[in-house]
Amino acid sequence: MALNIEKIAKSKISDVDFSNLKFGEIFTDHMFECDYKDGEWQTPQIRPYQPIAFDPSAKVFHYGQAVFEGMKAYKDKNDDIWLFRPDQNQERINKSAERLDMPAFPKEFFFEGLNELLKLDSQWVQKGEGDSLYIRPFVIATENCVSASASTNYKFMIICAPVQAYYAGEVRVVFADKYSRSANGGVGFAKAAGNYAASFYPARLAAEQGYQQVVWTDASTHEYLEEAGTMNVFFRVNDTLITAPTSDRILDGVTRKSLIQLAEDEGIKVEVRPVSRQEIVEAAKKGELKEMFGAGTAAVISIIQGFADQDQKFELPVMEDSYALRLKTRLTGIQQNKLEDKFNWTYKVR
Amino acid sequence: MALNIEKIAKSKISDVDFSNLKFGEIFTDHMFECDYKDGEWQTPQIRPYQPIAFDPSAKVFHYGQAVFEGMKAYKDKNDDIWLFRPDQNQERINKSAERLDMPAFPKEFFFEGLNELLKLDSQWVQKGEGDSLYIRPFVIATENCVSASASTNYKFMIICAPVQAYYAGEVRVVFADKYSRSANGGVGFAKAAGNYAASFYPARLAAEQGYQQVVWTDASTHEYLEEAGTMNVFFRVNDTLITAPTSDRILDGVTRKSLIQLAEDEGIKVEVRPVSRQEIVEAAKKGELKEMFGAGTAAVISIIQGFADQDQKFELPVMEDSYALRLKTRLTGIQQNKLEDKFNWTYKVR
Ligand SMILES: Cc1ncc(COP(=O)(O)O)c(C=O)c1O
Ligand SMILES: Cc1ncc(COP(=O)(O)O)c(C=O)c1O
Repeated sequence: MALNIEKIAKSKISDVDFSNLKFGEIFTDHMFECDYKDGEWQTPQIRPYQPIAFDPSAKVFHYGQAVFEGMKAYKDKNDDIWLFRPDQNQERINKSAERLDMPAFPKEFFFEGLNELLKLDSQWVQKGEGDSLYIRPFVIATENCVSASASTNYKFMIICAPVQAYYAGEVRVVFADKYSRSANGGVGFAKAAGNYAASFYPARLAAEQGYQQVVWTDASTHEYLEEAGTMNVFFRVNDTLITAPTSDRILDGVTRKSLIQLAEDEGIKVEVRPVSRQEIVEAAKKGELKEMFGAGTAAVISIIQGFADQDQKFELPVMEDSYALRLKTRLTGIQQNKLEDKFNWTYKVR
Repeated sequence: MALNIEKIAKSKISDVDFSNLKFGEIFTDHMFECDYKDGEWQTPQIRPYQPIAFDPSAKVFHYGQAVFEGMKAYKDKNDDIWLFRPDQNQERINKSAERLDMPAFPKEFFFEGLNELLKLDSQWVQKGEGDSLYIRPFVIATENCVSASASTNYKFMIICAPVQAYYAGEVRVVFADKYSRSANGGVGFAKAAGNYAASFYPARLAAEQGYQQVVWTDASTHEYLEEAGTMNVFFRVNDTLITAPTSDRILDGVTRKSLIQLAEDEGIKVEVRPVSRQEIVEAAKKGELKEMFGAGTAAVISIIQGFADQDQKFELPVMEDSYALRLKTRLTGIQQNKLEDKFNWTYKVR
């Protein structure tokens, strides 16, 4: 496969304070890029990370025709670099693209780009506890035209940002009862750019009330708990772990599906079914709601300390035998090549 | 108000074939630009239309945090340039921005930018029958950071494209019964970039079946007819004009509200209320459905010749006394300063 590579003259890595990173603000030396025009993907290239000129009429600016992915690379003690289930992200970005009427990006290109980029920027994957490289593949519409129809041209890119363990502090959530994130028959299952913009305002209103996340509910009835901003959500009622089924409104999270499998492997009972707010509120009142946590690539597992359902507020207990911690230890152990990878999830970068 | 202006050295207007324009592909000599940073809008500028460099991590590429407007300028026989209810677009872009957690753009800046830009590029507003200048104000998130939260930086722009009368050919529509455009509590009422990307795929499926537009229905039941891709929709049943009320799912179109007022002024009975597909199908079966048309800035009024509701297909009659044509003549007459502007809608560019 042809891939043009232009290397940086001098790495900027020595300017970076790896112990003081804000999420997603510092990028590695190189970026991967591939343009779609005349009905096909052109020869991909890797070149020094840099700004790119866009015409103000580029469709991505007007119609939000853009999809993305988020993955992490870890370096083990032998300096090998590991990805976690990258095939899932590769498939998902194409599912997202299809729903937004964008062309699929070839699997070979995706993996070739990822491997070459990580090889060139391997120094940027740090080995400290919790360190990783956040990888952001994305596709944007680049046709220069303001008519409201699918673009003829696209740009696929991969950029990478070194990140530290994600710690959001205490997390309390509020169940959405007015705003919503996605509709039946909409694009909620896709990592479509516009879904995120739509959530910022309700998220800010929640933050002003002291809630770090919104747990979205179905738009028709606001009765069923769906997912958080960038995380799927799990509830532990007594000793059963419950999470909503995926649908056209909910992202099919890689962390979510891996946790379901790990939990079952650990002998934890898992139920994948609609979860109503009423059920969770009642369980909380009876003291049966033991844990609640978010699951997503950025934070892996984010423990939720409390929640609000309209005017009612609840605090969750601190569990000795926390499923969240048990599953997080197991999952991050596999991701970092420290624990046995029973399900063949990890992918070693060439 | 400070506004920095850098003029082009030489206009590119002589390269343009005004009798052969595709919608939204050719732009005028200048563009208006204003950046938001450190919590405020900076000094706006007008400079030659040109590509702009963006970091690949700019939030607009990842989270679709972008809103826009669409307006038209017409030149009358005295070479005066007229806008139609630009205050509505100015207010609406800020409403859209608010829902996407973006800062409001000051009204003075908006009008100052618009006036100066149109003065500089006045040659580009052609006088031929149906000619106009399409004006596209938009705001995009420009912070360079891939964390999923509202941007700290933005860019407001106005770009302009000369356009000819919009003729889409025969238009047949299909009522949506699977996909949807917006949710209760969502961003459907906003001109949010992501709404449009979400509609491209269902629109393409419809086009493959021979339908030029989808009439979106409410996502919860798919029973109520809401609006088309970039048009509100009107139904004439016998001698009554019916259109759906605006809501958080439906764009509050300037053309729609102007047509309602003009229709009432013409003595036509107008009902603004939920319109069910069942009602429209039954009216069509009884021969009581006389007209159906879309209303929006680009096409002004777009007559709909036929529609499909699931497996049932209907053709609409050609009316002698067409409300659509009557209202279109009146509205475009006002917009072009050819007819009395009873409601004080037009705005003369300085
Ligand atoms: C809306 C949404 N839900 C859930 C997730 C979790 O998915 P994953 O585990 O694949 O990162 C994400 C992304 O990370 C997301 O954006
Ligand atoms: C979704 C949608 N509905 C309706 C309209 C019509 O609005 P207006 O008449 O203000 O152009 C538009 C935009 O033009 C639109 O994008």
